[in-house]
Amino acid sequence: MSSGGNSKLWGGRFTESTSDLMEAFSESVSFDRRLYRQDIAGSQAHARMLEKVGVLGAEDAKAIVEGLDAIRAEIEAGRFEWKSQLEDVHMNIESELTRRIGEAGKRLHTGRSRNDQVATDVRLYLRDAIDDLVGVIDRLALALLDLAEREADTVMPGFTHLQVAQPVTFGHHMLAWREQLMRDRSRLLDARRRTNVLPLGSAALAGTVYPIDRAFVAGLLGFDGVTENSLDAVSDRDFAIEFCACASLLMVHLSRWSEELILWSTPMFGFVALPDRFCTGSSIMPQKKNPDVPELVRGKTGRVIGDLQALLVLMKGQPLAYNRDNQEDKEPLFDAIDTVSACLRIYGELVPSIAVRRDRCAAAAAAGYSTATDLADYLVKKGLPFRDAHHAVGSAVARAVVVGCELSDLSLDELRGFSPLIEADVYERITLQGSLAARNHIGATSPEQVRAAIARARKSTGG
Amino acid sequence: MSSGGNSKLWGGRFTESTSDLMEAFSESVSFDRRLYRQDIAGSQAHARMLEKVGVLGAEDAKAIVEGLDAIRAEIEAGRFEWKSQLEDVHMNIESELTRRIGEAGKRLHTGRSRNDQVATDVRLYLRDAIDDLVGVIDRLALALLDLAEREADTVMPGFTHLQVAQPVTFGHHMLAWREQLMRDRSRLLDARRRTNVLPLGSAALAGTVYPIDRAFVAGLLGFDGVTENSLDAVSDRDFAIEFCACASLLMVHLSRWSEELILWSTPMFGFVALPDRFCTGSSIMPQKKNPDVPELVRGKTGRVIGDLQALLVLMKGQPLAYNRDNQEDKEPLFDAIDTVSACLRIYGELVPSIAVRRDRCAAAAAAGYSTATDLADYLVKKGLPFRDAHHAVGSAVARAVVVGCELSDLSLDELRGFSPLIEADVYERITLQGSLAARNHIGATSPEQVRAAIARARKSTGG
Amino acid sequence: MSSGGNSKLWGGRFTESTSDLMEAFSESVSFDRRLYRQDIAGSQAHARMLEKVGVLGAEDAKAIVEGLDAIRAEIEAGRFEWKSQLEDVHMNIESELTRRIGEAGKRLHTGRSRNDQVATDVRLYLRDAIDDLVGVIDRLALALLDLAEREADTVMPGFTHLQVAQPVTFGHHMLAWREQLMRDRSRLLDARRRTNVLPLGSAALAGTVYPIDRAFVAGLLGFDGVTENSLDAVSDRDFAIEFCACASLLMVHLSRWSEELILWSTPMFGFVALPDRFCTGSSIMPQKKNPDVPELVRGKTGRVIGDLQALLVLMKGQPLAYNRDNQEDKEPLFDAIDTVSACLRIYGELVPSIAVRRDRCAAAAAAGYSTATDLADYLVKKGLPFRDAHHAVGSAVARAVVVGCELSDLSLDELRGFSPLIEADVYERITLQGSLAARNHIGATSPEQVRAAIARARKSTGG
Amino acid sequence: MSSGGNSKLWGGRFTESTSDLMEAFSESVSFDRRLYRQDIAGSQAHARMLEKVGVLGAEDAKAIVEGLDAIRAEIEAGRFEWKSQLEDVHMNIESELTRRIGEAGKRLHTGRSRNDQVATDVRLYLRDAIDDLVGVIDRLALALLDLAEREADTVMPGFTHLQVAQPVTFGHHMLAWREQLMRDRSRLLDARRRTNVLPLGSAALAGTVYPIDRAFVAGLLGFDGVTENSLDAVSDRDFAIEFCACASLLMVHLSRWSEELILWSTPMFGFVALPDRFCTGSSIMPQKKNPDVPELVRGKTGRVIGDLQALLVLMKGQPLAYNRDNQEDKEPLFDAIDTVSACLRIYGELVPSIAVRRDRCAAAAAAGYSTATDLADYLVKKGLPFRDAHHAVGSAVARAVVVGCELSDLSLDELRGFSPLIEADVYERITLQGSLAARNHIGATSPEQVRAAIARARKSTGG
Repeated sequence: MSSGGNSKLWGGRFTESTSDLMEAFSESVSFDRRLYRQDIAGSQAHARMLEKVGVLGAEDAKAIVEGLDAIRAEIEAGRFEWKSQLEDVHMNIESELTRRIGEAGKRLHTGRSRNDQVATDVRLYLRDAIDDLVGVIDRLALALLDLAEREADTVMPGFTHLQVAQPVTFGHHMLAWREQLMRDRSRLLDARRRTNVLPLGSAALAGTVYPIDRAFVAGLLGFDGVTENSLDAVSDRDFAIEFCACASLLMVHLSRWSEELILWSTPMFGFVALPDRFCTGSSIMPQKKNPDVPELVRGKTGRVIGDLQALLVLMKGQPLAYNRDNQEDKEPLFDAIDTVSACLRIYGELVPSIAVRRDRCAAAAAAGYSTATDLADYLVKKGLPFRDAHHAVGSAVARAVVVGCELSDLSLDELRGFSPLIEADVYERITLQGSLAARNHIGATSPEQVRAAIARARKSTGG
Repeated sequence: MSSGGNSKLWGGRFTESTSDLMEAFSESVSFDRRLYRQDIAGSQAHARMLEKVGVLGAEDAKAIVEGLDAIRAEIEAGRFEWKSQLEDVHMNIESELTRRIGEAGKRLHTGRSRNDQVATDVRLYLRDAIDDLVGVIDRLALALLDLAEREADTVMPGFTHLQVAQPVTFGHHMLAWREQLMRDRSRLLDARRRTNVLPLGSAALAGTVYPIDRAFVAGLLGFDGVTENSLDAVSDRDFAIEFCACASLLMVHLSRWSEELILWSTPMFGFVALPDRFCTGSSIMPQKKNPDVPELVRGKTGRVIGDLQALLVLMKGQPLAYNRDNQEDKEPLFDAIDTVSACLRIYGELVPSIAVRRDRCAAAAAAGYSTATDLADYLVKKGLPFRDAHHAVGSAVARAVVVGCELSDLSLDELRGFSPLIEADVYERITLQGSLAARNHIGATSPEQVRAAIARARKSTGG
Repeated sequence: MSSGGNSKLWGGRFTESTSDLMEAFSESVSFDRRLYRQDIAGSQAHARMLEKVGVLGAEDAKAIVEGLDAIRAEIEAGRFEWKSQLEDVHMNIESELTRRIGEAGKRLHTGRSRNDQVATDVRLYLRDAIDDLVGVIDRLALALLDLAEREADTVMPGFTHLQVAQPVTFGHHMLAWREQLMRDRSRLLDARRRTNVLPLGSAALAGTVYPIDRAFVAGLLGFDGVTENSLDAVSDRDFAIEFCACASLLMVHLSRWSEELILWSTPMFGFVALPDRFCTGSSIMPQKKNPDVPELVRGKTGRVIGDLQALLVLMKGQPLAYNRDNQEDKEPLFDAIDTVSACLRIYGELVPSIAVRRDRCAAAAAAGYSTATDLADYLVKKGLPFRDAHHAVGSAVARAVVVGCELSDLSLDELRGFSPLIEADVYERITLQGSLAARNHIGATSPEQVRAAIARARKSTGG
Repeated sequence: MSSGGNSKLWGGRFTESTSDLMEAFSESVSFDRRLYRQDIAGSQAHARMLEKVGVLGAEDAKAIVEGLDAIRAEIEAGRFEWKSQLEDVHMNIESELTRRIGEAGKRLHTGRSRNDQVATDVRLYLRDAIDDLVGVIDRLALALLDLAEREADTVMPGFTHLQVAQPVTFGHHMLAWREQLMRDRSRLLDARRRTNVLPLGSAALAGTVYPIDRAFVAGLLGFDGVTENSLDAVSDRDFAIEFCACASLLMVHLSRWSEELILWSTPMFGFVALPDRFCTGSSIMPQKKNPDVPELVRGKTGRVIGDLQALLVLMKGQPLAYNRDNQEDKEPLFDAIDTVSACLRIYGELVPSIAVRRDRCAAAAAAGYSTATDLADYLVKKGLPFRDAHHAVGSAVARAVVVGCELSDLSLDELRGFSPLIEADVYERITLQGSLAARNHIGATSPEQVRAAIARARKSTGG
């Protein structure tokens, strides 16, 4: 009795071999091979469990575990030959194992399916990736903290609508970036919690007839628990989508930092200078020095958002349980991981080397009537309702615009023309330093508060 | 002291009034008025705090609180006149307050800005919406649990690649749906934690000069804490994006249920019947009864994913702090909340009324060689390595396909032709009931495990 | 013969009436009523055709046409009562028609279905919307042409990487905006061509048994032809997606203009001033004048891209033919039309009122070594290979950066230190005017070329 | 004259060499090397033009053209060494050229910039890709036409809401697929028109000082014309976005076909069988034969939509002219091209091999009251208004549902109970063949119309 024309491991019922076009179209080993460590660890844990529950003999289990160790070593030495006819990382490794250890290799797949195997591999991979990213985030967050401390007293214009609004400190601005990052960190850890659950044991979709011990496998692989439903476990890709959503938001944050660094590097703003080693020039314009890092990061935001959208579209409308569509989950996920990791790492290097041009920052803060609100608040303290104070100062600004001067250039008489409550003490209230120092509550921009925030942050993170 | 040509509350420095086209283009009151309750609660808390710290007199504070109570009553009675020239919900309410109580009304805005005000309003609104959605999810999850219990023994085909794979129980399938929903619930609660933080006190972007007590305000409004950085607080829309990401994933889940209900309602599958009251007919074809609820839910998945994409694009590349772009955060967020809420609610009604056609389910499970894996496992237990067992059974299936029969229709002799290990006891192992009962570990599909899972779920949720 | 419990027009086979929740969930008249004009025109054309081919008597046809005229008048007078129990615009109008004219109204739906009816209505609506948008684009393109002409000689810095690159003219920059817009126009007209094809006659999905004359209907409604396949015609929403893709790209363009206007309005750039009537102030900062129009337009880009994404997700994986999901096509499409229209219109008003601050533009162009390329080209003309010339000038720039001066501030001796080919005539070659004038070929920035481009544009559009 | 520490071709003004991290982060040669043919063709045309206008000597031009020919040959032989320190395909090739031919190589970049060079390369690449895709589409469209002809008489149920609606022919259904594809083709050709315009000559952003002849270059490279504005030309990526929009819509179409093939391959539908060579099995379930091709195609829809979204986000809010963000345009574009091409090609192979199971199609069409509309139309021809006919037939269906039979199983007396207009001739009107044949107008499903549509299609395409 011959198997007909298909030599694949699943080919028993097939009467034709797979077409070449189909093989090229459907292989995944070109991109899922990066799961080899997780795949091997998962197979070893599975084999140990099968041995523990008596499905596999001790010698078979030992042969499997050692055979897989040898294969991993070969892969890491770059000597393993991946074959696209063997479809994916799983079949490549299992086939090689059987070639090496014979019969025992054919017993490894007892009580599992590629459906729960791949779900396990990807969850392991993502868990490790999150752990790595959290470490990178921590280093970047610390760099921001250090920069914030260095520039805790540096005055710069705060913007709303990209118009000069009120003076802030550069340190305060860096702490705003850090807040965004800490929320990203918190989201990643929440995603990790939902990722780190073991699907193995769900088999194809319905569980298996063997007396498996899933908790044992979970323990070996460092999972926090086991999935509760086999149909769900083999078809669930929430973890990939949730990660890409976290990654998209993180990239949106980095895109915002990038936008600011690009603006601040223009000759018009001139608030910062980036070191030459992170910039490039032009093939035609000899004078150019371009802020490529923030530009590329801003650009890469699109690809991660695209990855998220790809996965949402992928899963929309899929009936249970596993469908082959799901093979398309890996490339977007891997791309999001790689992109976020690269962007965080290079910002981790760039941030400490940002040179703040304090004179330019201060000059910009001094223009644009940035302390007009302080003048209004001055009037409020003299008893004027806020709305009336706002209106009086607005009129004073309109006058200063016509004259072409700042508020503090108007004489006391001129100022009193807008409100008789204004007295000589007004001038000290509308200085940049006065304005900054007066904003002295939790979350506000005064150097004192910035230092307090840095101290709280260092305490909470041990940074 | 004349204001020039602009009578807006902020119009002091302007020399022209706003163009009509601009007023229509930029107003938000047509959609942000739904924040009125949050806006009023926030203003009342702000006024109480200003009184507490001595910035506002007791009488002014009282007038403000009572005036706002009256305005809220008027809005809820449908008698409030919203004006688009007053731009937004905030200015509409503040203007009306001042019209009613005079001078005190003009003092309300002391120490805050619309930037922190709107952030506070939206966070409050979203927090309440999440609480509502969690309640709706709990009811739907309970309905799934009840249906799973009702159909714990109902055999149906489990599918992979939409081909018949192995028998499962209908109850098991419903529990898979529930797992998806419980992850959504968990994500929403994580999002709530990051949403429920008070930005008020950040003022325009830099904090304020008044001795405000932010923790007091947070306490009054039920926030878990206060934001740590004013620049971040007025420009952060993470909570809206994170919610829309949760909502998108939730809708993807509902789209998958919908796909299945639509399939199961076809005459070809015929696994379920939906009640007439949730179906509609055709304007031209008199016989039609259409599964409109799942179709519409599947369709609405796109709009929520679109809302998420809109918000990600909105925030990409924005420099700090607040930019007017952010006014565009509300409509996508509200749309996502409304859509998810409506879909969850109607599924909460529909699920208990799903009539399962057990005969059709069982008949479908009996076709398609759904117990072929059980035959392979039978051979494994007789000592054959799994890969060899798989191959032998594959060949048997190929034979049965040619003959046009099921595996159990093949004679023992024929079966033994594929493996001499097969004996007469094989027939009882490849029944649907035998296959089901044998999958008896946590997460697997046997009726016993389904009942255990239901019991665990009821215990953990008190359902 | 009793109808059971459902009084809907399609309710013959139903035994329960529609649940209230379902009615609210599934109604579309709240948003599709805006199709009333198209729905009535389509019904009138259908009735005329039925009369022509002998399916409808002349009196019935007349009653229908006149009855629909009366209904349209009532709708436009705001007196028509829309009922959500009647589901959609089609059933609302048909029911009212039958209430008015009796039996004849019940004959109107002969040979058609809501499936082809709604496809016809939306195509008509979109075609008219495109025609309107093209008109708005033409006005905006003309405004850009006028502004370009006004500022054809105005020198400003051209940027790459937002670093000063080479001098350009403001007029040239405005023509770049116009090029983007003209591509949008061209795409819209291509989309119109594919939209303006009549689906009516496809009935539910398979065509109809009546001897209909589809070309006659197409002629009455101004369609360019009829659809070729009924299954496709009732399920196709390509036109909506293609429009939203065009609209997204158009919004991306406007977002780019917006970014520039926002940058140029900062005190740091100061290249333009926007009139007060298109700006707003701050509720707290009296001095603020914000560029709200470009900010809102930039923000609205997200919603249109979200609309596109919603429609792509909507259609993904739908089997033929019509599914109820498709009801969700309208809101994203309408939103995209409305948003693009509003943004184009307000830019049509804003562009002519942009005040260019020529002194600031020129000062910015003079800084930042913007003519360094001209110096390299000078050396090339003296015989140096471009790469060597680039390197020599790069070194000169590095020197000037250290000294803190511009290239033209370096003495001839200093300059000759970087290349002995440099002679006294160099200074006139590296002026802004010299640099501009020398870029004198099609597409380049010299005032002469800008004027030539304007002339070509005026000729081709009659503007 | 020292170069300081940066040896890059643009490194004259830099004092540090690029950091390794930055080099790895910013290189593009790993993915843009696929542009080598276009890059070389563009450089050769540029050199020829420089020679023509007298900027380059004949010998230099010859050396460049021949040097580039040699480099292309080396690349195609797999012997070219790409270096990531040389950043991109352009610098890799230019550096190697200079290494080979010396001084002349340094003159190649005269009058151009990487900004216009890369825009030219990508446009050329995309134009060629579109031409290739149109060819693939034509082959697939022909396969559909052949299949439609083969199954022009095959009756199957037409679906709306995935409920049986009316009988259609399989051929008609295939023609519906073809209509979608022909619109995709039309859109691609429109996109080609806007792509095939030469940006070279725009240089960095402002044009160049050399007397270039852009029309000559356009002619050499097969462009239809030259871009009109240099700032626009170097910053425009509309062509990539428009292509990805076309590709997304095309993939949405293929996802719909895929959904149907997956449904039709289930044992429940059983309308078609796919050949073994395009299917795969399961690692655990020996009986499985899965429709992997349509599943993978449906899954790949997400990635192309993700590519589109990535590009829209990329360009949103970018100021003119070129920004480094734009380097991120290539991977999404290439991925969309590759994915669409692979999916179209495999469908081109799969479609001719679809085996239609005519008995199963016919049996499904005969159930589900698919000719109820014909009964209503029968009554209309007897004089009943359509709405009343619809209602009467609906009641008859309700009765048949209760009885558990088809309409034609009801006795004449029973039928007359619903309308006395029914007579004995009714039975022949509600057969499948009668229903099909009666839908006999352009676009309708009768075999006659299907054959006419095929004939028209063959005539218009020469297929």
